[in-house]
Parts: sequence; C-alpha cells; structure tokens
Amino acid sequence: MDAVNGLIRTRMASEHAPRIPEVTAHLVEAGGKRLRPLLTLAAARLCGYDGQDHVKLAATVEFIHTATLLHDDVVDESDQRRGRPTANLLWDNQSSVLVGDYLFSRSFQLMVECGSLRILDILANASAVIAEGEVLQLSAAQNTDTKQDTYMQVVRGKTAALFAAATEVGGVVAGAPEDQVKALHDYGDALGIAFQIVDDLLDYGGATVSLGKNVGDDFRERKMTLPVILAIAAGSDQDRAFWKRVIDKGDQQDGDLDTALTRLAETGALEKTRDIALDWADRARAALAPLPAGELRDLLDRLAGFVVARVR
Amino acid sequence: MDAVNGLIRTRMASEHAPRIPEVTAHLVEAGGKRLRPLLTLAAARLCGYDGQDHVKLAATVEFIHTATLLHDDVVDESDQRRGRPTANLLWDNQSSVLVGDYLFSRSFQLMVECGSLRILDILANASAVIAEGEVLQLSAAQNTDTKQDTYMQVVRGKTAALFAAATEVGGVVAGAPEDQVKALHDYGDALGIAFQIVDDLLDYGGATVSLGKNVGDDFRERKMTLPVILAIAAGSDQDRAFWKRVIDKGDQQDGDLDTALTRLAETGALEKTRDIALDWADRARAALAPLPAGELRDLLDRLAGFVVARVR
Repeated sequence: MDAVNGLIRTRMASEHAPRIPEVTAHLVEAGGKRLRPLLTLAAARLCGYDGQDHVKLAATVEFIHTATLLHDDVVDESDQRRGRPTANLLWDNQSSVLVGDYLFSRSFQLMVECGSLRILDILANASAVIAEGEVLQLSAAQNTDTKQDTYMQVVRGKTAALFAAATEVGGVVAGAPEDQVKALHDYGDALGIAFQIVDDLLDYGGATVSLGKNVGDDFRERKMTLPVILAIAAGSDQDRAFWKRVIDKGDQQDGDLDTALTRLAETGALEKTRDIALDWADRARAALAPLPAGELRDLLDRLAGFVVARVR
Repeated sequence: MDAVNGLIRTRMASEHAPRIPEVTAHLVEAGGKRLRPLLTLAAARLCGYDGQDHVKLAATVEFIHTATLLHDDVVDESDQRRGRPTANLLWDNQSSVLVGDYLFSRSFQLMVECGSLRILDILANASAVIAEGEVLQLSAAQNTDTKQDTYMQVVRGKTAALFAAATEVGGVVAGAPEDQVKALHDYGDALGIAFQIVDDLLDYGGATVSLGKNVGDDFRERKMTLPVILAIAAGSDQDRAFWKRVIDKGDQQDGDLDTALTRLAETGALEKTRDIALDWADRARAALAPLPAGELRDLLDRLAGFVVARVR
C-alpha cells in the first residue's frame, strides 16, 4: 500500500496545471479507506503474483474511484465528503469535472503501461458499467416507481463494477487459472453490492457507528435506495402517498425525515435491507472457495465481515 | 463516414439508461463537421490500410471529442453549441457530466477492441494532454499575465492533441513506416493549432463568415486567447489598464466589447493572430511531404486551407 500511495502521489502531479494536484491531494490525502487498491494487491498476491504491475493496477483503480467521487459530488451538489468540504465547494464545479477527467486519463495511462489487453478490456467494460449506472441512478431518482432490480443495476454500476474489476485484474495480472479469476470477480461483485447496500442503510442511520455521513442525505436528494423501495413495497396506501409527496414531488417539510425513519422501521424495511446486505456478504465469502487457502484468503473473508459489521 | 456514423449510433445506445442516447443524439446529430473522424479515415487509407478498424478508431475519436464538448459546456456554463441549446441547458449539468463520462468509457471500449497497445498508448497520452490543457485553461483564464506559451499549451491540450492522435492512429493502424506516422502526427498537431487559433479569432468576429457563434463569448468568459494576449503585448499602459479591468476584475460595462474590438484591431492583434494561424496551416501542409502523393494527401492539404479559409 505504501508503493500504491507513492505512485498515486507521483502520477497525480501535473507540470503545467498546479490546480490538479491541489484538488486531487485534498481528496486522496483525506484518508479514504483505500479498499479498492487493497483488493487488487491482495487478489494478485493470493494468486501467487510476485511482479510489480499490481501496484500500477491498484493505483489505476483508486484513480478511477477518485475521479467518480469528484464527478459524483458535482452531480449530487454535495458539500461534504469523508467529513471534509468537497472539492466543488473548495474550488468550483469546473475544477471537479476537469480534474476528474484528468484522473480518468491518468488511470488509463497506468493500465496501458501494464501491457495486457485483457486487463484493459476488463477495466474498459467496468468504466462503461460505472458510467451507465450513474446515469441510470440520475433518471431513477425522484421516482417511487423504481423497483429493486433497477436499484441493483445502479448498485452494480456505481459500486460493484469497480470492486469486481479490482479483484479480477489482480487475478489476471497473476496469470491465475480461469476458475480463480472468476471467483475473484464474483467475490468483488458481491462485496461491492454488500458495501453499497450498507452505505444506503447507514444513510438512514441503520447502524450505531457513524461514518460522519449525515443521516438523511439520500432522503433530501430524493434517491430511491433499497430501504425506501422496500418500505414502499411493504407499506400502506397512506405510506405510498407520503413517499410520493417527499420523493416524486420533492415536497419535504419539517418532521418528514422522522416520519420516513418511522415508516422505514415499522415496515421492516431497515431490517430487510440489513438482511440482504448480510446475504451478499455471505455470497462474497462463499465465492472465495476456489482460491488458495491461507492468510490472504482469510483477509478477504474477514473484509466481507468488516463491510457489513457497520450494520450488524 | 457512413460506417462511422452507424457505429456511433450503435455504440451510444444504452439498454438501461435511455437518457444517454437522448443527450448524445442531441449533440452527435447536430451536424458537427466530423473533422476528427475524417482525419483518421483519410490517414489510414492514405497509408494503404484496407481493414475495418479505422472505422472504430474514427468513432473513438469522435466520442472523445463529444465527451469533452459535454464537459466543456458545463465548465463554460454555455447555452449554445453548434447553433443549438446545449445539453446542460436542455437536461441538466448532471446529465452532461455523466453522459460525457459514458462516452469516454465507450471510446475506451472501442479502442481496446482494436487490440493495439501502441494505439491505446497514443490515445491514453492524448487524453491526459487534453484534460491537463482544460485545467490549465481554467487557471489561466481571468489573468492578463497569461503569455503566449501558456496559450499554446492550452491549445495543444484542448484541440491539437486529439487532432494529432486522430491522424497518428490512422497511420499506426495501417502499419505505416515511422516517418509517415510522425508526418501524420505533425500534420494533425499543426492543423489542430491552426483550427483553434482561427476559432479564437472568429470569436472576435475576425472573419466575414459567421459560424453561428456569438462574437464576444470569450470576452464575456474572460478567456485569455491569442488576440487578447497580442493586444496586451502591443498595447499602451492605458490599454493594459482596460484589459485588467475587463479580464482580471471582470468589471465589464456596456461598450466594453466595442472598445475591445477597436483595441484588437488598432494594435494589429487580429492581423497578427490571423498570420500565426496561416503559418500553422502552412506547417501542416509542409508536414505532409513524406506521405504518398495522390488524392488523399491532396485532401489533407486542402483541409488545411479550408480550416484557415474562414479568416483569410
């Protein structure tokens, strides 16, 4: 991880445009969990890799992630990320858009350096799924007709695609057999889904541990996340009228968030959401079976538990 | 070009997010000149290519261009593009950012399909230069201390890098000898620089033919383009005070655009800008020497004349 962090710092430099490292450093140094690059490193070593390209791939994955965060904050008009003011607030939307583009292009250069067309193919496809998921999320927002399968597609796009690519390229760079590469992909996919569902649950305070994220952000942004979808499905006609008013019409008044939290609890939507997250964490763990037993497989196993521990 | 347009239409489709083709079609169908894909096709055929990958590369180049237009319009807060309302006005900034990302990822998939690491390397580097140029432009704006070399760096980034990549990959996909690949790169680079200087000159009405672009857009956005840089360099102390007020401070009043146009004309800045553009068009033509003589080389030669004809 030290090598990854060093490479990230080197590659985010720009001789001509000092704004770039300023903006990026703000985000990269903010102490994110670096979960995705860790997945790539662990997957590669688990499959016996002893080269250095996995460091480049890990940095690639983190750059893609950081770029999407910069663009997300513009799209969501956020003012907080990881407990700090967002780049679009400190500089401007323009810088967030363009520095995001810069990081995408740097990630692209890094992966080309690894010289594997298969890895490029995996990351190109992941990029397309991510972008498609983000657009889908935008059009599904503010619409209470959104169903669970659309939500799952959004989650696959915005989160699971990069987790799955992060683990899969680790296996590919190591030259692992196909069943192990597939296992790594499936693990990353399930882990990413669990991670995002937990995130969406925590946005309604679904756990005791706070992540510095304000409860109700998704509610105020009228996002159709799993807790709301399940609450609508299990709710009464009166419930549906409530959700239509606050989500579709965006007519939100004092006390509506409290009502929402009550309805989410009383319909069992919060518990159901947690159970679905736990189920995906179990699937992630189960996917690890074809991989060589040992310390690193245990690490990935524990990581799945760690991701859902926040809502257990 | 029909094959390129067909491929563009197919690849901009998205099964899950209908917003994507809506936004993209608005821009792609708006009747842009398709200059960049034409360059790729012509370069490949000129070097004797008889395969089909040049169509994919041409579509790649147009997707990258369209993605940067979508992001530019958000950054510039534009409301007009190619004589029509911009996507950020018709939909929202969110859609422009995310659909731009989607087109980048689709372009990435297309180029991976061609299976050439060298082409991927060229396009990855071009992407980084483009993004860096855009950020540099942002920090150079509203600052009358900006010099011509910074302007040239911005132009290389925002325009010439993609022109040069468009022609270079045409040569590479054709397996052309190195001196021809270099000639194509140099031609695209010089053509792109001429093209952008002409564009910046036309923004001050530097030609008789209107392109539907409003005169004075760059002035209002306080951009440091070549005409202004030359007018400041050749101007009096009084001139510099004027430019500092309207560009650095952004204190623009009725009649200031007229004053600007007068100062640009009287300092000879408009003529000097035109001469520099013509010089780059000449350099583009000269770069063609190592390439096989014939109809396609003549086309590229005439294209250089066409690009500057708007200000001659």
